[in-house]
This record gives sequence, structure tokens and C-alpha cells, in this order.
Amino acid sequence: MKRSICQGGWFLFVAIGLAVMSVVTGHGADSATPKSPTMADLLKASKPGDWRQLDPENTLYMDLTAGRVIIELAPTFAPKHVANVKALAREHYYDGLAILRAQENYVVQWGDPEAEKPALARKIKTARPTLAPEFDRTWEDSLGFTRLPDGDVYAPEVGFASGFPIARDPKAGRTWLIHTYGMVGAGRDVALDSGGGAELYVCIGQAPRNLDRNVTLLGRVIQGMELLTTLPRGTAAMGFYERPEQRVPIKSLRVVADVPVAERIPLELLRTDTVLFQQLVESRRNRRDEWYHVPAGRIDISAVPLPVRPVGK
Amino acid sequence: MKRSICQGGWFLFVAIGLAVMSVVTGHGADSATPKSPTMADLLKASKPGDWRQLDPENTLYMDLTAGRVIIELAPTFAPKHVANVKALAREHYYDGLAILRAQENYVVQWGDPEAEKPALARKIKTARPTLAPEFDRTWEDSLGFTRLPDGDVYAPEVGFASGFPIARDPKAGRTWLIHTYGMVGAGRDVALDSGGGAELYVCIGQAPRNLDRNVTLLGRVIQGMELLTTLPRGTAAMGFYERPEQRVPIKSLRVVADVPVAERIPLELLRTDTVLFQQLVESRRNRRDEWYHVPAGRIDISAVPLPVRPVGK
Repeated sequence: MKRSICQGGWFLFVAIGLAVMSVVTGHGADSATPKSPTMADLLKASKPGDWRQLDPENTLYMDLTAGRVIIELAPTFAPKHVANVKALAREHYYDGLAILRAQENYVVQWGDPEAEKPALARKIKTARPTLAPEFDRTWEDSLGFTRLPDGDVYAPEVGFASGFPIARDPKAGRTWLIHTYGMVGAGRDVALDSGGGAELYVCIGQAPRNLDRNVTLLGRVIQGMELLTTLPRGTAAMGFYERPEQRVPIKSLRVVADVPVAERIPLELLRTDTVLFQQLVESRRNRRDEWYHVPAGRIDISAVPLPVRPVGK
Repeated sequence: MKRSICQGGWFLFVAIGLAVMSVVTGHGADSATPKSPTMADLLKASKPGDWRQLDPENTLYMDLTAGRVIIELAPTFAPKHVANVKALAREHYYDGLAILRAQENYVVQWGDPEAEKPALARKIKTARPTLAPEFDRTWEDSLGFTRLPDGDVYAPEVGFASGFPIARDPKAGRTWLIHTYGMVGAGRDVALDSGGGAELYVCIGQAPRNLDRNVTLLGRVIQGMELLTTLPRGTAAMGFYERPEQRVPIKSLRVVADVPVAERIPLELLRTDTVLFQQLVESRRNRRDEWYHVPAGRIDISAVPLPVRPVGK
């Protein structure tokens, strides 16, 4: 038999057309007892109400030559940045720009290669070139909070709200999106109000949690991460590509609501405010698959899978 | 000015020939005050005694068509597995085998594609096909321990010993290597003693800490990670490549002591048992670079950089 590491902890990016369950059925999944369901068992038993469909008005398609990257926006946490990124997309600001940077175990970033040359830089029409930061926001109970039980190195409390990984400081009454794998943010310069969405980045390695509350996060890649993580790393400082021909062109970046229905990819995401999701977290804290010798008994927020699948699968 | 995310938290994989400091001098590094040195400042001020040279007897070169991956072995924590991997390398077991699996945000794994077909599988001569696990070991004070101050979601204590990330349970008197980015382990099947090093994996994404104490770790990639992380992801279950031609051939995997001196790449690593290293951890807990608005004040073990550079640079 093949020596392997058991099935991945990550389920995030299910290829369309691939039966969703196949990704999580590796060694031992069949041997789980009814009393300790695996993630595969739980998803198999899920009801339609355990899932939520993507909102076309808050989803982006970034089309590269190699394929499509799908980003869910987080207007609850960064309303002005989300509105601005959509405005930029709708004025075709990003179309024809490029991925400029791929830094090992850190970020992939795209924008206008000529941003530093005003004469050549792309003009922004109706959108805002920069915005005040949205690093955190006021906590409100209406946000909902599925808190993780095992604490966090960086924040007083962590968990999920509206399907996004968040931290919460109950004393300060503040909450913020956190930098985990696949999270998307608005690059900025030294000035806190120098971002706004004209340059965007995605976390491609170990969660860079030191960036939390230092830069505005506004969404999360829910499909197509492998198109970004496998890009050649840039060899200039901070992983920027040295030569223009190394940059990766962006064919288009569109709000899904503007894409003809026939061209859309209908996806649904597991809700994070359900009993089923809590069971899934518990099942990942204590892996009972036959392969496991010692269940961790704990889980870091960056290790919690957020399942995505084609609608109705 | 270019909107960016400040310089990466990762310094691990310094290209040979690249001035080591260039990697960490991005925005704001120049503005650090003398009272709060950046990592670049600290490395610039380091003394020769702050570094240790790789031991050729405990370093591997894995040569791919695309370049060289360098692995430091950890005989202190997995003595039998390290000895067996070296024995396998010395009987040329790995030469001509292939990378078989690349799973998004999880692992890259290599071994014998025909391992499941006894008639075709490569014969192991002097080495052992399998070994008893070395998931953890007895704690001894002689191991040394640079403990991190901010705790850990998974283990009672975490820090560094012999340059490797470890966990420690003082009550149980046990210690173990942990799964962070770049760590190398011996794949196994369901049976705990089915590993041994004939199939090896590297962690390429968010630290899969749920694997700790479930599989034997035996080393860490210290250069060439980008050759593994940028590989196309496999589309079969668990990220295995579906077709033989998708596999990535291994030209050779050698113990550096067996490589002619002229062909070696002399590297040194920052020691983790020094005052300088503690200062580096502190500097990464509280980033004072001009770009940072809120220093995290804390650090996860998976985010601590372990600098590597050409000898004498």
C-alpha cells in the first residue's frame, strides 16, 4: 500500500465537476464510527439549509489565461473597500493589468505595473484612488459569532461570522477579519489611507497574522487558489517580478452580477452559523479517521476548512 | 508610490548569490529606531558565532530538473529515520523516483510510483523498508530550548531546539518536532510502523499541526521550497498526479558528505540558542518598521523566520 499523509485538512477549493466527496475520502474515512463522524460524513448528511449561495453582487471572477479565480467579498467588514473594488471592476480598471508579485510563503499581488509613473498609470474614473482604512469595526451581536474553543495566539477570541474568519476583542467592542490562507486585502503604502483596492493581494502561505489590523481585508478566494500559489516566485525584492514579461496578465476582473448567467459558476458555501458547522469543527479538532494515532483535540482558526461546492451537489 | 504589503515575514529561502539583506529591506526598514531593531538590523549586527554551518553528514540535496532542494536532517529527534533516509540515499534508492503528489495548501510528496506493485517496485537493499515510529522523544535539558512567550493552540509549550521548531510537554517529559512550513516527514500508511523514509513529504501551506505526533518528522527544507510549492497540483484524490507523465522526476537525492566539495553550496543558519535569536523573535513579535500601524505583540511558532545564508556573507 502507498505510504501517504492522510487526506488534506483542506477542502476549500473543490474543482468544479469533481464529485465533492471524493476530495475527503482517503484512508480511513470509511472506518469512522457513527459516533465520530468525519467531515465527509457530515457533509454527506448536510441539508440544503446548511449551505448558502454566493451573492453575485459580492463575488468577483478574476480570469487569467490559466483559469478563473473566484473571490467572495466581505461588505460586512469592509463596506467602502468592497464598494470601491466593485466600482473599479465596473469601470474595467483591472482588465489588462497584471499580477506583479509572488512572494514565497507570503502573498500574490496584482495591480497597475505603471502605478508609480503618473503619465503611464491607468486613470481611475468613477472609483476612488484611495480610501480611509477599514482595519476593524464595531462589534454588534447581529453579526453572529461561531467562536472557536481553543483560543488563539494573536487575538482574545477568534471564530467565524458571515462565513469569514474573524477576531473579536469583547473589551474593546471591536472585531476584524484576519489573515488566513486565501484572504484578500487592499495593498497600501506607508500612509494608512493609501490603499483602497487598486492593488490587491492574496495570502498564499502560512497565515501572516502580523498583518491583522494593519491592512484592510475585503474578501477571500473560494476557488482557483492553485492558479495563484503555483505562479513562479518573483526574484526582485519582496517577490516582485523583475521583468515585465514575467508578469501574469489579468484578462478581466468582473462582478459576477455583471456576468451573463450562462457564464457563471454556481457555487454554495457551508454556513458557519449552524450546528453542522460546529460538528465539523469538532470533527476536525479530533480526527478519528483510522489513519490518526493522536487526535489533536484542538484547532487553529487557520486550519478550519470552509467547504465550497457546486450548487445542488 | 507602489501600494504593497510590507516585506514578507519569511526570510527562510535566500537565493544563493543574492545579498542576504536585500530580502528584508522593504518599506520602512530604514526608519527603525536604534531602540527597536528590525530583523535586517539584527542580522547585519550578527557575529559569526550567531550562525552555525550545515553538517554535510546531515544535509540532503534533492536535485530536480528545475533546481536543487536542500534539506537539513534532524537526527536529534528522529535518529533511526534519519539514518535510514541516508542509507536509502546512499544506495541510490531515490534517484530516478519522482514527486507523486502535490496537494494545495498541504503537502508535496515523493517516492516510488510503483510502490504498490511488488513486481515493479524498486528494491531496497541495505536500508530498512519500514521503521517503528519516532513521533516524539524524551525531553532532556541538554537539548536546549528557546521557548516562545506567546503560547500555542496545540501544545503546552513551543519553541526551538537545535534550530528546529518543537513542542514540549513538561508534565509528560516529552518533546516532538512540529509540522510547520517546510518540515519534512516520512509518509506512512495506517499502520504506525509502515513509514521509514521510502516516501517523504514536505509541508507547503498552512502548518498542518493536526499531524503532530501522528507521523515522523525528520528534517526541514532550508532552500528550494519554491521548486516544490509552485508544482502543478495533482488532480487525483489527495493531490496525487493522475498520469505518470505529470510526475516530477528526481534526478538524485544525495547526502551532502558524498557530494564533491566543489559541487556543494556552503550555507549557514542562524542559531536559535542565542541572545540574538531572542532579539529577532522579539523584533518579529513587535514589527516597528514604519509600515506597521499595530505591532501584533505576539507570534505563532509557524511565523518565526529561520534565516539561512551563504557561508561568510
